[in-house]
Amino acid sequence: MQIKPESLILVIFGGSGDLTKRKLIPSLYQLYKQGKMPQRFAILGVGRTSYTDDSFRPYLDEALQTFLASGEYDKALAEEFFSHIYYSAIDPALATSYPLLKERLAQIDATIANPGNYIYYLSTPPSLYGIIPQHLAAVGLNEEDYDTQTPIRRIVIEKPFGYNLQSAKELNSIYKHSFEEHQLYRIDHFLGKETVQNIMAFRFANGIFEPLWNRNYIERVEITAVENMGIESRGGFYDTTGAMRDMVQNHLSQLVALVAMEPPVQFNADLFRNEVAKVYQSFLPMSAEDIRKNVIRGQYTSGEWKGKTHKGYREEDKVDPQSRTETFVAMRLFIDNWRWKDVPFYIRTGKAMPTKVTEIVIHFKPTPHKMFTDAQGLSVPNKLIIRIQPNEGIVLKFGAKVPGSGFEVKSVSMEFTYDQLGGLASGDAYSRLLEDCMIGDSTLFTRSDAVELSWQFFSPIIDAWQDAKFPLYGYPAGTWGPTQCDELMEGGNTWTNPCKNLTNSDLYCEL
Amino acid sequence: MQIKPESLILVIFGGSGDLTKRKLIPSLYQLYKQGKMPQRFAILGVGRTSYTDDSFRPYLDEALQTFLASGEYDKALAEEFFSHIYYSAIDPALATSYPLLKERLAQIDATIANPGNYIYYLSTPPSLYGIIPQHLAAVGLNEEDYDTQTPIRRIVIEKPFGYNLQSAKELNSIYKHSFEEHQLYRIDHFLGKETVQNIMAFRFANGIFEPLWNRNYIERVEITAVENMGIESRGGFYDTTGAMRDMVQNHLSQLVALVAMEPPVQFNADLFRNEVAKVYQSFLPMSAEDIRKNVIRGQYTSGEWKGKTHKGYREEDKVDPQSRTETFVAMRLFIDNWRWKDVPFYIRTGKAMPTKVTEIVIHFKPTPHKMFTDAQGLSVPNKLIIRIQPNEGIVLKFGAKVPGSGFEVKSVSMEFTYDQLGGLASGDAYSRLLEDCMIGDSTLFTRSDAVELSWQFFSPIIDAWQDAKFPLYGYPAGTWGPTQCDELMEGGNTWTNPCKNLTNSDLYCEL
Repeated sequence: MQIKPESLILVIFGGSGDLTKRKLIPSLYQLYKQGKMPQRFAILGVGRTSYTDDSFRPYLDEALQTFLASGEYDKALAEEFFSHIYYSAIDPALATSYPLLKERLAQIDATIANPGNYIYYLSTPPSLYGIIPQHLAAVGLNEEDYDTQTPIRRIVIEKPFGYNLQSAKELNSIYKHSFEEHQLYRIDHFLGKETVQNIMAFRFANGIFEPLWNRNYIERVEITAVENMGIESRGGFYDTTGAMRDMVQNHLSQLVALVAMEPPVQFNADLFRNEVAKVYQSFLPMSAEDIRKNVIRGQYTSGEWKGKTHKGYREEDKVDPQSRTETFVAMRLFIDNWRWKDVPFYIRTGKAMPTKVTEIVIHFKPTPHKMFTDAQGLSVPNKLIIRIQPNEGIVLKFGAKVPGSGFEVKSVSMEFTYDQLGGLASGDAYSRLLEDCMIGDSTLFTRSDAVELSWQFFSPIIDAWQDAKFPLYGYPAGTWGPTQCDELMEGGNTWTNPCKNLTNSDLYCEL
Repeated sequence: MQIKPESLILVIFGGSGDLTKRKLIPSLYQLYKQGKMPQRFAILGVGRTSYTDDSFRPYLDEALQTFLASGEYDKALAEEFFSHIYYSAIDPALATSYPLLKERLAQIDATIANPGNYIYYLSTPPSLYGIIPQHLAAVGLNEEDYDTQTPIRRIVIEKPFGYNLQSAKELNSIYKHSFEEHQLYRIDHFLGKETVQNIMAFRFANGIFEPLWNRNYIERVEITAVENMGIESRGGFYDTTGAMRDMVQNHLSQLVALVAMEPPVQFNADLFRNEVAKVYQSFLPMSAEDIRKNVIRGQYTSGEWKGKTHKGYREEDKVDPQSRTETFVAMRLFIDNWRWKDVPFYIRTGKAMPTKVTEIVIHFKPTPHKMFTDAQGLSVPNKLIIRIQPNEGIVLKFGAKVPGSGFEVKSVSMEFTYDQLGGLASGDAYSRLLEDCMIGDSTLFTRSDAVELSWQFFSPIIDAWQDAKFPLYGYPAGTWGPTQCDELMEGGNTWTNPCKNLTNSDLYCEL
């Protein structure tokens, strides 16, 4: 395990789709360029669109030129790369397609001397997630030798994995019938991000943060992942999904897990994901009453935004004019274990906010004894800010003495930015995850139990929202969401907005 | 207490001396400019040099123009300031001078309506430190009302306060006969520095460092205060003093105290200085054998330095050609209390080193469990560097994930520099201390017990050095001292030099 296989066919279901074009092919090209693809490999696009091998390649070439960062595209290298790419125009929804697929794979196997190593990448509409594995199993394309785990048969599933607890369980059950857990790679592209992975390095490669990382020293944690765009052209998808399913149940809960987890014994798929699951198991379940107190949902209305009027969510294309789909969620949750008891975790996500930012703010408790204070006689707060994007880095805010007489202190900051390490490779998340999948490392992929445990906590909230009396607050596009959010905070605290004052723009406030 | 008096005369003994010109007058001018001098004040220079009021002022005017930072001098303001300055040409060594001094003070009192508030500043050769207070007392110039502590009678003494434990005790005894402890202001200009004071703000205004600040998390502490100059024209003074008296017993031990002290109950003169004294009380006494193991002394020899040959210490002007005076000290000491048991404190000072730097390096213990390591499979060290000078600031070194596949970590740093707060006022140390003395805040001045406690620890080392067999190592000017220094370190560690590689100069390596 965790060795690059000598040969491999990567089958992309949804080969002609948007994700393939935008993310998968550019990432695979990068891996190829870096010599990280197996020595003998093929990529087989599968879909209903009637490409041939020959017409598929120019289509991807155009995509490469569009979606690679400037200067990354190399004509000769791209040609070479495309010689590994094939296409099968079959309908993955139909059982009858799979004998054809199997035959095609056998042909390519012969061409590249591949002993049947296949990775299936499901980049299709979620409605096919339950169908494809069954069809693959029906023709034996799921089969590995139990002991040697050869030939390689892995399946990568894009989000969303299930729609609620019930559907996630049903989907898990289908996969369990066709594949073993070690063959499953549920993608959470957040975990592919350098800065998300660095949360672990930051916590567990250093001795100085861990002693502070608990209820004795941390007052509260805030996690914000917001976007400054509306739903753009994705109305059809979004209106049946909403922010809870799109962002909270998967990405935000993953970030909570990384911040809150115990140090794994080792950093491998089993042991790391055991710790993630333990965090989800510790989420303090909420009664209907708790949900009303701790969860705020919102939907953007029209607003002045970047100098022009932005339409409200209900006016967006392909959105129900009476839609009650949330484009914003803010909530307070508790992790009921020794480390975190009574420390509130505030998480929020939203569309059409003033800026695009993902960051974690750890608020430490004030000093137990006030010896030095600021000009107002207050303790200077200690905060650690982990910026996932943009301006990836870590900021520590603390108090330093104001020069001059007396002993007044003032908040100052220390900053680390990824620029120090030569910056981040573009499109890195998918490259990282594709590479990990090829070498058989599923650490950064979501395990079945975690999916269910997460849904177990978040599903009741979605259920509670079915009650038409559960408030859905409007917020003008370009604002920080419903004003009711601050009521979640205790002690007069407010959310930490990277750009509090819209007229006072800073580095990562785009408005 | 701690209120600016309405009127005051500051008497400077050694009025025509170097310190008055370079530091005191420029600092007093700054305080005057900032409106921090009492409403009615006078400065009376006292010394054997035969200035008059009228000739003293142009002499100081020249000094102001020379030693103020450029742009600070204002002709009109300086004139105004000088109208407060007087001079008495008397010999402070002679008892007969003091009735004259008393008379002159009474005259000035009448002029500025001062009820006898006097501060005496001893900027004389140390030989007068024991004489002046007795003469002042003989004519009643020491007298305060016991209950109201009026009129103000304070005495400021420059370093060195004593030559060893015996002489410090004798000096203390003289002062105790003439003054109360609250009237004594022993200057340690290190404590007047912003960055030194900020050590306390950093530790005690923030909740996140204190939990780590003990033997459980800190492996060792290094304090370095070195200069890149030789002794220049100060051979006469230096050859009878040496690095131990000039730097270690006072400044370095003060820095050790600030790093090691318990949080004071309040930040006032009594409670803060109680904690300093407690640190000195906790210094683990050393036997003759311990001293040999834990103390290295050195003397610079000629060396290539900044591209030219620098003479050795024994060739310097006014230095005994057989001198065994140390120009370098490195030592390991232990603080024998709950917080610091077994944590070595490494301190060193030296002349003619590669750079001028004062900094404190806190080395934290490695992670208890190695999960992520660097390319060599090692833990990345966590260090906190408090830079007193130059580039005043704080640097935190920790491990972050190297972008790309795998989980390799690399040392990166976060930095805070004082520039964030608008930088440091020039010549701030004396201004701060003079202002504190005027308002009656002796917190940043050394208390009698601390002087004796410090000498109690360091005096036996100087005694041990009387043994001609105690090694005095030579080190070429422009190097980091005797190579034997690294032997003080355990576990293969070496001293942290801001500029390790002389060819690879960085910001604060001047060589």
